[in-house]
Amino acid sequence: MPFFCFDGIDGAGKTTQITRFRDWLESQSMEVLLCRDPGTTALGEKLRDLLLSHSDTPIDMRSEMFLYMTARVQLVEEVIRPALAAGKTVISDRYLLANVVYQGHAGGLKPEHIWQVGEVATDGILPELTFVLDLNPEAAAARRVGDPDRVEGRGDEFLREVRDGFLREAELREDIVIIDASAAPEDVQSQIQSAASKRFALGE
Amino acid sequence: MPFFCFDGIDGAGKTTQITRFRDWLESQSMEVLLCRDPGTTALGEKLRDLLLSHSDTPIDMRSEMFLYMTARVQLVEEVIRPALAAGKTVISDRYLLANVVYQGHAGGLKPEHIWQVGEVATDGILPELTFVLDLNPEAAAARRVGDPDRVEGRGDEFLREVRDGFLREAELREDIVIIDASAAPEDVQSQIQSAASKRFALGE
Repeated sequence: MPFFCFDGIDGAGKTTQITRFRDWLESQSMEVLLCRDPGTTALGEKLRDLLLSHSDTPIDMRSEMFLYMTARVQLVEEVIRPALAAGKTVISDRYLLANVVYQGHAGGLKPEHIWQVGEVATDGILPELTFVLDLNPEAAAARRVGDPDRVEGRGDEFLREVRDGFLREAELREDIVIIDASAAPEDVQSQIQSAASKRFALGE
Repeated sequence: MPFFCFDGIDGAGKTTQITRFRDWLESQSMEVLLCRDPGTTALGEKLRDLLLSHSDTPIDMRSEMFLYMTARVQLVEEVIRPALAAGKTVISDRYLLANVVYQGHAGGLKPEHIWQVGEVATDGILPELTFVLDLNPEAAAARRVGDPDRVEGRGDEFLREVRDGFLREAELREDIVIIDASAAPEDVQSQIQSAASKRFALGE
């Protein structure tokens, strides 16, 4: 069964679109498992808290990348691999691509190093399709609920580099689809369903 | 200035030998920085606690390896790289080799994957010389103070595979020296100083 991922800067509408997409898949009698990366497992949630809360603990950009990787290993082994093996469809809120973009393209680490470490961390379990909800940082900030977390709070210039990073990776990889997230929520969902249907026998 | 590492199963005498070796280096007017991996930094100590305390949080063998790597990244950037740049000699209680042996040779992960991920984690900052204090697990258990931690507590068979892993890596790499830790502490220290002197202009 397919493994889908949603990504994009906070405020682009991931949560809304994931819920609608899940409902659409379930309406086709698919069993769907939702997860978020980092998080979902006990270890992952502890590491998520370390990563995203504002604290005095210094975290190097490379340590940050490795913390995400650690949470992802546990997510793969405890949740994603068993779900796929049981025939479920998995939807993850973010995954490896987020590291490539946030700590790589925007954070200064080498994207190819992150893909390489990610290959070991995920044991090769990668989404068949990642939807990147694309929105300019100003529009996303206006929609965002609450204050930005430690990583999103690096400012508009950082988020512009994040956005550019997503676009550049999408040019290189066929498993990434850019979705125009400035449209109305139902139109965004139509783009997503249409892209999923093109790749898989869905919605027919 | 050189970067030294001490490794070996708990009870082999690392703490005693590190202290004596540090004193010997300082007696030659070297400025020495001691650290432990995982640990030393605020982030590293938090992760050390996650790794070594007995808790209900499931940690996959590959997550365990990545937790160690994360702590090591922070140790390199916050402590080791600045110390070496300031002309200090660094002695680390464990380092990357411990992952190769505990999670690799004994834990079932591929040693070459661990070396590869470790290259990114350490940014290539590796000890010039690692002293492995070699002792059979029964003798080490008799010397050990307190109960074994989560990782050391995997039993004698696991620790025998750890010991074999150290010996195999030492056959492959010139930067690892096996030290017979069954001897009296002063004789163990003589072996260490002699090995260090052969490699560097020390003790002359």
